Amino acid sequence: MPTVRERVDTGRTEAFSDGVFAIAVTLLVLEISVPEDAFDNLWRGIADQWPSYLAYFTSFSTVGGLWLAHHAILRRMRYADSTVIRLNLLLLMAVAFLPFPTSLVAEAINRTSAERPAVLFYGASLLVTTALITAIGRYAGARTELLREGVPAGDVLAVASVTAPSLGFYAVVLLLAALAPVVAAFGFLGVGLLAVLRARGDTAGEPGG
Amino acid sequence: MPTVRERVDTGRTEAFSDGVFAIAVTLLVLEISVPEDAFDNLWRGIADQWPSYLAYFTSFSTVGGLWLAHHAILRRMRYADSTVIRLNLLLLMAVAFLPFPTSLVAEAINRTSAERPAVLFYGASLLVTTALITAIGRYAGARTELLREGVPAGDVLAVASVTAPSLGFYAVVLLLAALAPVVAAFGFLGVGLLAVLRARGDTAGEPGG
Amino acid sequence: MPTVRERVDTGRTEAFSDGVFAIAVTLLVLEISVPEDAFDNLWRGIADQWPSYLAYFTSFSTVGGLWLAHHAILRRMRYADSTVIRLNLLLLMAVAFLPFPTSLVAEAINRTSAERPAVLFYGASLLVTTALITAIGRYAGARTELLREGVPAGDVLAVASVTAPSLGFYAVVLLLAALAPVVAAFGFLGVGLLAVLRARGDTAGEPGG
Amino acid sequence: MPTVRERVDTGRTEAFSDGVFAIAVTLLVLEISVPEDAFDNLWRGIADQWPSYLAYFTSFSTVGGLWLAHHAILRRMRYADSTVIRLNLLLLMAVAFLPFPTSLVAEAINRTSAERPAVLFYGASLLVTTALITAIGRYAGARTELLREGVPAGDVLAVASVTAPSLGFYAVVLLLAALAPVVAAFGFLGVGLLAVLRARGDTAGEPGG
Repeated sequence: MPTVRERVDTGRTEAFSDGVFAIAVTLLVLEISVPEDAFDNLWRGIADQWPSYLAYFTSFSTVGGLWLAHHAILRRMRYADSTVIRLNLLLLMAVAFLPFPTSLVAEAINRTSAERPAVLFYGASLLVTTALITAIGRYAGARTELLREGVPAGDVLAVASVTAPSLGFYAVVLLLAALAPVVAAFGFLGVGLLAVLRARGDTAGEPGG
Repeated sequence: MPTVRERVDTGRTEAFSDGVFAIAVTLLVLEISVPEDAFDNLWRGIADQWPSYLAYFTSFSTVGGLWLAHHAILRRMRYADSTVIRLNLLLLMAVAFLPFPTSLVAEAINRTSAERPAVLFYGASLLVTTALITAIGRYAGARTELLREGVPAGDVLAVASVTAPSLGFYAVVLLLAALAPVVAAFGFLGVGLLAVLRARGDTAGEPGG
Repeated sequence: MPTVRERVDTGRTEAFSDGVFAIAVTLLVLEISVPEDAFDNLWRGIADQWPSYLAYFTSFSTVGGLWLAHHAILRRMRYADSTVIRLNLLLLMAVAFLPFPTSLVAEAINRTSAERPAVLFYGASLLVTTALITAIGRYAGARTELLREGVPAGDVLAVASVTAPSLGFYAVVLLLAALAPVVAAFGFLGVGLLAVLRARGDTAGEPGG
Repeated sequence: MPTVRERVDTGRTEAFSDGVFAIAVTLLVLEISVPEDAFDNLWRGIADQWPSYLAYFTSFSTVGGLWLAHHAILRRMRYADSTVIRLNLLLLMAVAFLPFPTSLVAEAINRTSAERPAVLFYGASLLVTTALITAIGRYAGARTELLREGVPAGDVLAVASVTAPSLGFYAVVLLLAALAPVVAAFGFLGVGLLAVLRARGDTAGEPGG
């Protein structure tokens, strides 16, 4: 059990995390551009950037799903102990890192030699972020002293159980990526969209909480 | 009617959305620069960037108007259900995408072959973001169980009715863009400014809400 | 007098403005880099970037001072009417634009032909942002119905009177810039620092307000 | 003792600071990329970016630790006087500057002539940010009139005493950097991680504070 000295309230942790989530998804667009020499046939030049749109859409959905889970966990918590704070910093570091593998995969698709490593590296990054949010949910759900009054531990574990299956999906799609990288890239989009679609709201929602 | 499990309070949704809106408008400036070889006649070099200023001003006004409408809708809501959350993520994805078509249109103006597709692509992006905020307003306005006590549904629909006409204006200017792309680029600025000028405040404003 | 329909509470306006202020100052650093060929004598390469540091320091101080004045004005307000909202959007647009003239001045210093226009353009941008915050303070200070209970109008005008003198200083330094651009660049730093040093806090501070 | 006029509540100071912290850590990733010619052997190309990962990880940990200390100090404060506000602006300026020395060190590692100055410059930047947060903690801890009711001055000084030892560590590692720059680069990572691991929470935590 954490000592009182190790407790931190969750208000500013949420504010800082929201900032990192919001900036990470917004920076993704900086990687998209149409090369100068495609301006003569710009419709085609815009269409040729499809790997960038795919990567943008995938990373945005994934971070959107992470943010929903993060919000659902943290608003059920009264305090964050040192472990939660450090896991959260690791999560934010992984989220803020995502624009790099995202741009890498966007550039590498359709280049035979680079496609596979880029997709594997990208998928592994998505897997790590999802593992970290799942770990935070599991950890907090097992410690009722961190939760707000009246929030059952099962409630937080239920949130974590929404993100956990994505880990399995990522593992499967990573195996697929070794054979068919481009198909796997679409697979990661599917996992991200599924996480957003499965995300649920709150049972004990006070307005403005 | 949404079940209780699907409800999410709007506080952190607003914080996350504010972050994405603020970053998207701020990133727009990164696309503006004066090429090295224009430094010998820098006043002219600065003036020659007018398409960049036009695009910056247009996107900033448009996102400013979206933010006003977003704020007016969300502060009248008590809960966001799963549909609102997903529509909001789509809206944020569209807003965070805007720096790309903005920089494209700034580069393409005055290049005969690229002007038309760039302006059409840009206008379509503005149309999509406006359609999404209108959809959120319409959806929430039709569900009184999502609204704060004492907020009439008509109030939210009135906010949405401020953004809806922009859809018609965008459609008209997009048609115009096929004939006269540069004129249409100024037209998009007009639609954005009009949305800001037509935006209205709150009837039931509690301070600090 | 504004009708009730035109009122907007200031909470989310502050959040959105804080986001834009924070991002604008942080993006300033992206313009600073040491060219590849200066790596052989890196200490010198780092030192040679002094115009970039000067521009960074100046813009950061100026935006810091604007933020202090913005905060001092908005926390004394109960409502923002349509005029305040639009003036605030104009202010944010000017603040978010600053990284462009900042990088321009950093590049142009020490290039004979480009120095003068770059410094004048930069100074004019700083002047515009300061004029806009002064206008917001003057406007709100003259309308007691926008202020929180117990806040005398003179209080807000006193905040605006801290920023107003900077307008005169900028005008003087802009004249100087026509003769001695580099001296004027240091002058803008002086005006920014002075605004931060003259900024005052709150007379009626509730904690957490 | 500060006069009432000089007091500023800490709420918006925290929001603005959180924004700058969040953006500074997120911008760090923009410096990481794999050069085009490494796409033929992309695994190796990804691995070769290790100095970038080291610099990213080090700067992220350092800013994470600073943020923890900043939060711990400011939430114990009732008011920020003019000195705190100006020290805080200096701190934010130093934090927002970090992406520049971070990218410099990432580029310079493994280049014999550039390694040492880049590591020294980077370490000095980390030292300055840590000195500024320590100064804020020391200053506030010595002025009980700035603290919330019931917060003993010793409590804030205890937070500052967590960051102070890092100053000594940085001094030692900077000496080491003159002899073995790459070893020192790992040393800075160690100092940052240690600060995060030593960070403590709150004794008087109200939820949502």
